Amino acid sequence: MNPEAGIKEYIAALAGRIEDELKTSLPEQWSVPGALRESVMYSLMAGGKRLRPILVLAAAEALQGRAEAAMPAALAVEMIHTYSLIHDDLPAMDNDDYRRGKLTNHKVYGEAMAILAGDALLTHAFHTAVQAARRHGVPADVVVDIVEELAKLAGAPGMVGGQAADMLGEQGLTKLEELEYIHLHKTSDLIVFSLKAGGRIAGATSAQLDALERFGTCIGLAFQIQDDILDLIGDEQKLGKPVQSDVKQGKVTYPYFIGIEASEAKVAELTAEAKSAILGGGFPEPRRLLELADYLMKRDH
Amino acid sequence: MNPEAGIKEYIAALAGRIEDELKTSLPEQWSVPGALRESVMYSLMAGGKRLRPILVLAAAEALQGRAEAAMPAALAVEMIHTYSLIHDDLPAMDNDDYRRGKLTNHKVYGEAMAILAGDALLTHAFHTAVQAARRHGVPADVVVDIVEELAKLAGAPGMVGGQAADMLGEQGLTKLEELEYIHLHKTSDLIVFSLKAGGRIAGATSAQLDALERFGTCIGLAFQIQDDILDLIGDEQKLGKPVQSDVKQGKVTYPYFIGIEASEAKVAELTAEAKSAILGGGFPEPRRLLELADYLMKRDH
Repeated sequence: MNPEAGIKEYIAALAGRIEDELKTSLPEQWSVPGALRESVMYSLMAGGKRLRPILVLAAAEALQGRAEAAMPAALAVEMIHTYSLIHDDLPAMDNDDYRRGKLTNHKVYGEAMAILAGDALLTHAFHTAVQAARRHGVPADVVVDIVEELAKLAGAPGMVGGQAADMLGEQGLTKLEELEYIHLHKTSDLIVFSLKAGGRIAGATSAQLDALERFGTCIGLAFQIQDDILDLIGDEQKLGKPVQSDVKQGKVTYPYFIGIEASEAKVAELTAEAKSAILGGGFPEPRRLLELADYLMKRDH
Repeated sequence: MNPEAGIKEYIAALAGRIEDELKTSLPEQWSVPGALRESVMYSLMAGGKRLRPILVLAAAEALQGRAEAAMPAALAVEMIHTYSLIHDDLPAMDNDDYRRGKLTNHKVYGEAMAILAGDALLTHAFHTAVQAARRHGVPADVVVDIVEELAKLAGAPGMVGGQAADMLGEQGLTKLEELEYIHLHKTSDLIVFSLKAGGRIAGATSAQLDALERFGTCIGLAFQIQDDILDLIGDEQKLGKPVQSDVKQGKVTYPYFIGIEASEAKVAELTAEAKSAILGGGFPEPRRLLELADYLMKRDH
């Protein structure tokens, strides 16, 4: 990667590498029913920011680790993220027909195949993660740590728990803590996993893993609050309606509890906290992580 | 385990130990939304033969391995089996209201929570499997092998692929090979995983792993053909209708292709092949595996 490249070029270059690897991530030689393979690949290659795998690679880079060795964990986290979108879009969950301008998986392949494609991607993420040991010489005990953390942060006490709390809370949240539980687990947990996995593969110390965790928790929450703010502003511009009407639709967001200005201040504060964790962690190459934190805060894209 | 015990007592004793461990397998100290935890535990503790975890423990015992060290893999495979039942029962899949006389998960907790409970169990299986390294000193590279094999045999080229082929084939299978693909992947793959995982933990040689794989493939297929036979006989007795009417209902089974007598002969032949694989594998304590093969063939229970 050209060190002169700006953060947008950096992101685009990594996203390109990740997509090339994703294309061949379900081995061709495996006998898999054609419709299942198509359904899996449809969602895996449906675009998206590839933020989580980029964070895996950027964390490894901050410790001067090898991108190839970090790639299996990067692909694994994108598979987990993709399965969660397929299942979240199902009629029994959010019932969405479109995602990023494309029909959702179940609208193309039917509900049964969408459930199975999600199950297949979730399972394949673990097969993919362990290839770090198989093909890139990452020590087996590091891979065991990564598998354990992925299963925890993507599972009942992590992302699946966040999604369950979101479904259960649809009748209306009454406390900011409830919303923060959802944001932390639905969003931050996989981001924390990504950063720590990249760090582990590059030989992070336990203090550096803590710094990556703090960085990830902060940028994950900032990212989600920023999403809430952009949703509100977008809705106002689009619908010409005041913020309060979102509340009447039962859409409880961070600005609902503390207002837009305080929410914006919170995003800035979390971003500063994230950067300070990295700056205090003794990372030899912290630049891209710091740039990513700023990029996420300023995104209106 | 008392060596005098018959195979039924042996199975009952192991099933009891497995159920005791399953009860506490989702850590109490994890913060998990209450409804999600309930939904997971409802299906995990809903009974069943516990055949797969018993095979993990029996394979370890055949090599004089420690049952405690094999227990994490045993619990993991039962979690995978349980999640697959929850998802298979969903309205978009087999649409079943009851399983083993109890309401299915989605009838009690709703479809959204059933999907998430399945996702949580599938993910937690991997967390559970790696506890063999964490708590029982199983070498990390053995655990990496187990995780890789579980992800393959439970995933797109394994159990999920078998289920997808079953859904896709509901319009009617035309070849015995198609039915065998479904049986091998929906049923045999997890049984093969179970036996090899128990073997790996007990230090099986590569030839012994091959023997366990052959044993598992044969008893898995025999088990499924036996199921087809019992379904037909049960239907005849219950409904007083000839075998052929099942075919008209689009229920394509092994006896449909080769008849009941040839199916029964096939079960006996597969069982003999399974036992011969074990007898030729140099296992110091093969007795329970051999008894289990006979038990599965003769079951009319």
